[in-house]
Amino acid sequence: MTDTPHFPLSAVVGADALKLALCLSAIDPKIGGVLIEGPRGMAKSTLARGLADLLASGQFVTLPLGATEERLVGTLDLDAALSEGRAQFSPGVLAKADGGVLYVDEVNLLPDHLVDLLLDVAASGTNLIERDGISHRHPARFVLIGTMNPEEGELRPQLLDRFGLNVALSGHTAPLERGQIIRRRLDFDSDPQAFCAQWEVAQLALRERCQQGRRLLSEIALDDQALAQITERCFAAGVDGLRADLVWLRAARAHAAWRGATAIEDGDIEAVAEFALRHRRRQAPPPASDPQPAPPASAPQSPGVDSGQGQWGEMPAQALPTGARREVPSWPKKP
Amino acid sequence: MTDTPHFPLSAVVGADALKLALCLSAIDPKIGGVLIEGPRGMAKSTLARGLADLLASGQFVTLPLGATEERLVGTLDLDAALSEGRAQFSPGVLAKADGGVLYVDEVNLLPDHLVDLLLDVAASGTNLIERDGISHRHPARFVLIGTMNPEEGELRPQLLDRFGLNVALSGHTAPLERGQIIRRRLDFDSDPQAFCAQWEVAQLALRERCQQGRRLLSEIALDDQALAQITERCFAAGVDGLRADLVWLRAARAHAAWRGATAIEDGDIEAVAEFALRHRRRQAPPPASDPQPAPPASAPQSPGVDSGQGQWGEMPAQALPTGARREVPSWPKKP
Amino acid sequence: MTDTPHFPLSAVVGADALKLALCLSAIDPKIGGVLIEGPRGMAKSTLARGLADLLASGQFVTLPLGATEERLVGTLDLDAALSEGRAQFSPGVLAKADGGVLYVDEVNLLPDHLVDLLLDVAASGTNLIERDGISHRHPARFVLIGTMNPEEGELRPQLLDRFGLNVALSGHTAPLERGQIIRRRLDFDSDPQAFCAQWEVAQLALRERCQQGRRLLSEIALDDQALAQITERCFAAGVDGLRADLVWLRAARAHAAWRGATAIEDGDIEAVAEFALRHRRRQAPPPASDPQPAPPASAPQSPGVDSGQGQWGEMPAQALPTGARREVPSWPKKP
Amino acid sequence: MTDTPHFPLSAVVGADALKLALCLSAIDPKIGGVLIEGPRGMAKSTLARGLADLLASGQFVTLPLGATEERLVGTLDLDAALSEGRAQFSPGVLAKADGGVLYVDEVNLLPDHLVDLLLDVAASGTNLIERDGISHRHPARFVLIGTMNPEEGELRPQLLDRFGLNVALSGHTAPLERGQIIRRRLDFDSDPQAFCAQWEVAQLALRERCQQGRRLLSEIALDDQALAQITERCFAAGVDGLRADLVWLRAARAHAAWRGATAIEDGDIEAVAEFALRHRRRQAPPPASDPQPAPPASAPQSPGVDSGQGQWGEMPAQALPTGARREVPSWPKKP
Amino acid sequence: MTDTPHFPLSAVVGADALKLALCLSAIDPKIGGVLIEGPRGMAKSTLARGLADLLASGQFVTLPLGATEERLVGTLDLDAALSEGRAQFSPGVLAKADGGVLYVDEVNLLPDHLVDLLLDVAASGTNLIERDGISHRHPARFVLIGTMNPEEGELRPQLLDRFGLNVALSGHTAPLERGQIIRRRLDFDSDPQAFCAQWEVAQLALRERCQQGRRLLSEIALDDQALAQITERCFAAGVDGLRADLVWLRAARAHAAWRGATAIEDGDIEAVAEFALRHRRRQAPPPASDPQPAPPASAPQSPGVDSGQGQWGEMPAQALPTGARREVPSWPKKP
Amino acid sequence: MTDTPHFPLSAVVGADALKLALCLSAIDPKIGGVLIEGPRGMAKSTLARGLADLLASGQFVTLPLGATEERLVGTLDLDAALSEGRAQFSPGVLAKADGGVLYVDEVNLLPDHLVDLLLDVAASGTNLIERDGISHRHPARFVLIGTMNPEEGELRPQLLDRFGLNVALSGHTAPLERGQIIRRRLDFDSDPQAFCAQWEVAQLALRERCQQGRRLLSEIALDDQALAQITERCFAAGVDGLRADLVWLRAARAHAAWRGATAIEDGDIEAVAEFALRHRRRQAPPPASDPQPAPPASAPQSPGVDSGQGQWGEMPAQALPTGARREVPSWPKKP
Repeated sequence: MTDTPHFPLSAVVGADALKLALCLSAIDPKIGGVLIEGPRGMAKSTLARGLADLLASGQFVTLPLGATEERLVGTLDLDAALSEGRAQFSPGVLAKADGGVLYVDEVNLLPDHLVDLLLDVAASGTNLIERDGISHRHPARFVLIGTMNPEEGELRPQLLDRFGLNVALSGHTAPLERGQIIRRRLDFDSDPQAFCAQWEVAQLALRERCQQGRRLLSEIALDDQALAQITERCFAAGVDGLRADLVWLRAARAHAAWRGATAIEDGDIEAVAEFALRHRRRQAPPPASDPQPAPPASAPQSPGVDSGQGQWGEMPAQALPTGARREVPSWPKKP
Repeated sequence: MTDTPHFPLSAVVGADALKLALCLSAIDPKIGGVLIEGPRGMAKSTLARGLADLLASGQFVTLPLGATEERLVGTLDLDAALSEGRAQFSPGVLAKADGGVLYVDEVNLLPDHLVDLLLDVAASGTNLIERDGISHRHPARFVLIGTMNPEEGELRPQLLDRFGLNVALSGHTAPLERGQIIRRRLDFDSDPQAFCAQWEVAQLALRERCQQGRRLLSEIALDDQALAQITERCFAAGVDGLRADLVWLRAARAHAAWRGATAIEDGDIEAVAEFALRHRRRQAPPPASDPQPAPPASAPQSPGVDSGQGQWGEMPAQALPTGARREVPSWPKKP
Repeated sequence: MTDTPHFPLSAVVGADALKLALCLSAIDPKIGGVLIEGPRGMAKSTLARGLADLLASGQFVTLPLGATEERLVGTLDLDAALSEGRAQFSPGVLAKADGGVLYVDEVNLLPDHLVDLLLDVAASGTNLIERDGISHRHPARFVLIGTMNPEEGELRPQLLDRFGLNVALSGHTAPLERGQIIRRRLDFDSDPQAFCAQWEVAQLALRERCQQGRRLLSEIALDDQALAQITERCFAAGVDGLRADLVWLRAARAHAAWRGATAIEDGDIEAVAEFALRHRRRQAPPPASDPQPAPPASAPQSPGVDSGQGQWGEMPAQALPTGARREVPSWPKKP
Repeated sequence: MTDTPHFPLSAVVGADALKLALCLSAIDPKIGGVLIEGPRGMAKSTLARGLADLLASGQFVTLPLGATEERLVGTLDLDAALSEGRAQFSPGVLAKADGGVLYVDEVNLLPDHLVDLLLDVAASGTNLIERDGISHRHPARFVLIGTMNPEEGELRPQLLDRFGLNVALSGHTAPLERGQIIRRRLDFDSDPQAFCAQWEVAQLALRERCQQGRRLLSEIALDDQALAQITERCFAAGVDGLRADLVWLRAARAHAAWRGATAIEDGDIEAVAEFALRHRRRQAPPPASDPQPAPPASAPQSPGVDSGQGQWGEMPAQALPTGARREVPSWPKKP
Repeated sequence: MTDTPHFPLSAVVGADALKLALCLSAIDPKIGGVLIEGPRGMAKSTLARGLADLLASGQFVTLPLGATEERLVGTLDLDAALSEGRAQFSPGVLAKADGGVLYVDEVNLLPDHLVDLLLDVAASGTNLIERDGISHRHPARFVLIGTMNPEEGELRPQLLDRFGLNVALSGHTAPLERGQIIRRRLDFDSDPQAFCAQWEVAQLALRERCQQGRRLLSEIALDDQALAQITERCFAAGVDGLRADLVWLRAARAHAAWRGATAIEDGDIEAVAEFALRHRRRQAPPPASDPQPAPPASAPQSPGVDSGQGQWGEMPAQALPTGARREVPSWPKKP
Repeated sequence: MTDTPHFPLSAVVGADALKLALCLSAIDPKIGGVLIEGPRGMAKSTLARGLADLLASGQFVTLPLGATEERLVGTLDLDAALSEGRAQFSPGVLAKADGGVLYVDEVNLLPDHLVDLLLDVAASGTNLIERDGISHRHPARFVLIGTMNPEEGELRPQLLDRFGLNVALSGHTAPLERGQIIRRRLDFDSDPQAFCAQWEVAQLALRERCQQGRRLLSEIALDDQALAQITERCFAAGVDGLRADLVWLRAARAHAAWRGATAIEDGDIEAVAEFALRHRRRQAPPPASDPQPAPPASAPQSPGVDSGQGQWGEMPAQALPTGARREVPSWPKKP
């Protein structure tokens, strides 16, 4: 698609929960982005870049560390506006990301007002720049993918809540899976074109499945039974606010569409529960006696997930135990 | 009214206390703005935006995080002033908000001098810009709506006191209400025009009720009996200063106007008590033996509130227990 | 006097100690300004603005939070100086305040060098701007009124000492007085012109009394007996330095003039003791056995205070217990 | 090669582990740079400069402390772009380093966003500058060598992980070796040309060996058995993520090429284990019962390392015990 | 001498130690300035200004809080230098102070590099400005008088040492003396010209005495016996470095000249001991058994001090107990 | 040599260790500068300035506190470069210091990147300025003398190590020596020319001795026996890295040259041991059983030191006990 081919999402080994969350975002971008937590070295950017291939423009834009607001939103040239009678706009990162993925590595290290701005634009799909009475507006419809290592600082709860889904990656991959991952990576590195050619069928299937999911989506009712089940569970989980319910219901519907189904089933609700709840819980979930925050184990229970996706689903999902999220060690600062 | 329709305030489920406070502000803007406290995800901006529809201009302006004073008040072009003989003014956020709502999300994170400036302009209804002997003045009559999550930092008491009313939202909504809220949101999202058409009658009734309230207001006496009752209770509550008394009396009158009545009754005073007292108490109110700071339960006791407002009043108001306000945990900062 | 009438000082209910201190400053501005401490919501700015009406120019200038030194002192345009042969001066806040009141809300939050500058100019009555060998000087004779809420940070002792008088307001006003205050405020708000007309006689009497005081002042001896009594008490109180003695003697004389007397009496010394000592004590005064720092109760003991001043003096002065001044809680900062 | 000759790497006494890591980087730059930890005074920059002689361009560039991003990436002259129709680019440090070594002393004291940028460019081999719609791209293929004294502050784990190899130098060199090192240094200082001439044969042999290694590299399979062994050990070591596996396998292959072999043997894997694991371990390795994190003792066990390299391998490698890495004492800051 | 007369030093009541130190500085400016410590409200600036009248130019310059280095040293106009062939210099504070007193209030709150600069210029008597190869030099011979309230922050020992003499004022003045001080101040304030006329004889005598001291100074030997006694005592006092000895010897000689004597006597050494030692002691002096750091009580023991100086010497010197100097309470900062 | 004569180094009383270290630096500048530690008031700058007289240019340049990098390295005028075809360079402090001494008072208070820059230039003897592709290079061969009071903050170990020698001055000078020092200072101050004339012979002898040392230096072998002894002792002392060995050997040779000898003897090694080791020890040296870190007592044992140098060597060297170096009390910061 571009000059240097990227590692296809269909060839990724493991990371099933994250892949599922990304595909659901591709099917219904209104879910509102994905926040990925986990340690270093988990190829998070490879996965996010893989999502871009499933989207309209295929665009993948990385927000540079230390970017300014101006670099993000673009700039309006007022002098040109005065002399030429119209505002001249230099597009920023948000304009480039339109139709694709905006990837923000270590989003927890970004200044709050930039995170806020990113989330606003992602939610509205529009970037509006105003200066001295002149304004410019352009579409900025992208899936926002943020990553963070919670060991190095948290996002404020306000901002966490505004990411649609949250997935945690564990760094402790088993040896066999490690080997598969490395092997694929090496194959890709040694001959990217050949590797992509080898995975083209699987990749086309995955892309087709997402497109079909998008088509099916509007057919699937956001039915009352699903909603009732979700609100009960949100209440029981003691989440802040109501965004969890809304996101969960949308994500469950997207999961049904992903399965090729025409109605939300209990399995769909279960499959995405942790995605919607993880970052919105007030505290660690009640201990073992409560059956609800059991490992989501999403993919295994949704029969459609594993077909045509290589290793997807062949091993348990990698969500971390959830209770540990708010222990923020104070990482020693540099002078 | 604008191209993209907004969620009508009349269609909001629950949040009765806040809706009431907003309507009272629409009836008597001299009450001095509303400060909303509560956790993330409570659709606070939807409610505030809904208030704008009840006001003259329908204008709804959001103050961006990180806005400068210049962006707030606008700028004076002195060169133009010298060459053209008159000051050329580029309007800021305050000018845009005239006649509507100025919404400040997370007002507790704003620098103090900007909060101070906002409150000054909101109180005087005028924005005066002076620079080098040139000045410009324009009306800036807006209802100031601020939100804050007290977990992330308090406002200084000086500034808290200058917000007229204070409402706290609880994040723990019961499942049934959650479902209704989500259902309406989904209905709105899937077809905003149709949704607004469906609620147009209720919305018109609400707008009419506010307008009638504004007409009635000047007819209602700020009588001595109401004043005496309020000053006694302010004294008992140990509030700082005297603004509580003044705001409470005004709010009680607005509540009488809201009921369509022609005199302040005890129920009016009771209905708005917590709005005026909550952020002005020095400490937690005395324990149970003191009957006064009981849950305000405002709407249920004011018979006019529930009619024509859908679910308004059908469930107890959501004010949080008040004693917890000053526990400010030190949220870990980002590097 | 100006377009929008102000609340007349003569119509203020209660706050007798502060009103007295303000009038003494109007009689002898060399006393050196008044620092008002107290909680929010005590209408401090209304009182300070009321003082302006008793002064020559009637000017009332508020220092904006976050003002720069340039905005304070004004600016010299050197280019104009070179081309036109004379310095062109753009006046600042200090120039505007000449002949009236300069009001600094929350003076404890102002940077030290600006407080220092304000106090220097207030003491000398002259603002001198120098830049690159050009200088401009203009009179800046104003009464400096500062307010602070000591809960939010102290002034450095150096700067405290340089305010002539110090008055503390208690926030705990009794219900009856609350009612009177609110009632007057409401009367004023509903029809300012009528309200001012109603109080014009009292206001004229108050203004006349201050003018008479100013005339009497030079007639009253700063006699040795009064001085001896004051130095003894300053020594006993363990105040830092000698400014307390000087200010106390001047204030006692102004109090005598306020009474219409021709000599300082013991009552004059007593009436202003707390004004001069409060902010200059090193520590809390010794406990009850020491009769000296008893509540000043100034106005009641000076027979002339209550006549022609409405409620002045009809209730005990509101000075707070003094020992608590240096407990500075660390108010949580915003991020 | 340049005017002032540098100390040849072949003449360095001891520091075998580091020399090995540098040579492996010269053979396969995709390994991803070397992070050197150790105390002051270990001639780290001499060693890094020595590596430059083994690389294509021989370029050696030191990043100055306090360098700005602009100085790093270069600058685009937009005015020239507009008038002359093409972007005029002033190259920065990254452009100079192309084909050689970029040396960053005390990389842990560099701002995070610069470290991030350095690692991105090092990984991609390309420096892309974009500004206002104009962009410039130039190759920046260098081996990144960073040094740090962990006593003065850590790198964030995210950034540590992105350095391919990590070597720790011990400051406690034995007297005999000290003498040899000093002697050589003195010989070099007194007559650099003569010294270099004396070591020319050894230096040529080393350079030739690296070139041969580069040629052999593509012939050596990244076989499954080696991979399996590595993934097992990474899992056992509890490293974060999967970069360790990838780097380890590459480094083992480079070591085989360095030996002149055609297949990876166990000894190759062992020889580079500590290089890949050291900075990626979560905690100190389990105590003695676990045979794996024993001292790498790399060179001695790989027979090809010691031939033709002077003292290389004649003393045990100098890697520090690994468990101590995260004890970051808070070094007192200067005012 | 200037338009507005200043309070004459000869009319100052008490503060004998400080007056003595100031006069010694007037006699031998090479002693190196005076650092005054003490609480607020001690008329320190009045005393320093009084010293200016005893010096050649009578100039008295106050360094403004927050002054920049440029404002201190003056500025060089390079453009003028290029076009007119010579540097055009805009004098700063240092130029104005030449021949008089440079008064720095709260010198401990000044940035270190400005204190350092002030002390350098005071020591050399020359201000040298260099910029881009152009330089300007002008005499800057002033006595540097600094004040500090040690409760608000210390000077670094390096900088303390470079002030020649150090005097501490006690805030606890006895009632009788208080009365005298206030009386004189009031007399002065009510009619400055008359007051100065009344003190003209005493003031002339004081000025004459200083001039005679300056004449005598070169006649008095810095004899070995005095030096031996001083070095013994410096050693016993455990002072840092050797500046104490040098300053003490100079000050003792100035004291002899002040007495009108022609040789240093033991009394001279004793009279100035505390001035030289106070700020150079490492710790509190050993307890009572050591007779040396007893209260200096300088003036009473030097018979010449009290004659012709009004109240000088009539009460014990006001030096504070010395041991308390380094207890620096952390004064709460403003936000 | 210049207009105002300086205090001759030959006339300095005591401080033998430091004088020796300075002379060795004059003989072999490659030793790498001297870091002087000690309390205030020890005439450190007088000693450093004295060294300048022994060097080629006699230049003595003091780095001002708060100097910028630009002021240090000089500036390149690019506009001139473009119009005149060659870079126009405005020399900075480094250019002025060429051939002499660069004196940095309180080097521990300098920003790290400036210390780093100073040490780089001192080591290379060249200052290279690069900007936008234009560069300028000039010789900057100076002896770097830094002073620090470790009570006010440490240098980072990296930077400490890069100073060649380290000498600690004790502030506790005995009375007799104090007297001599003061006496000489007074003699100098009263008539600098006469004083210098009086010391001219000794000063010439000292200068001649240094020149002879420089001539002898290349004749003296850096023999293996000396090296072996030094490496053994460095190892035993547990110093970081190897710079200690190199510097020690060079300094021992310079000491032999200073003695007029033709070979390094044990006494030479002993005489400079503490200079090389003091700032490179990790911890306090082992207690008394280890004979090596005994007081260096350098000069007394090297017979040539005392002849022709006035008091040199007549009293024990003043090095402080070494173990105390890293106790850095946190000096209270100014606001």
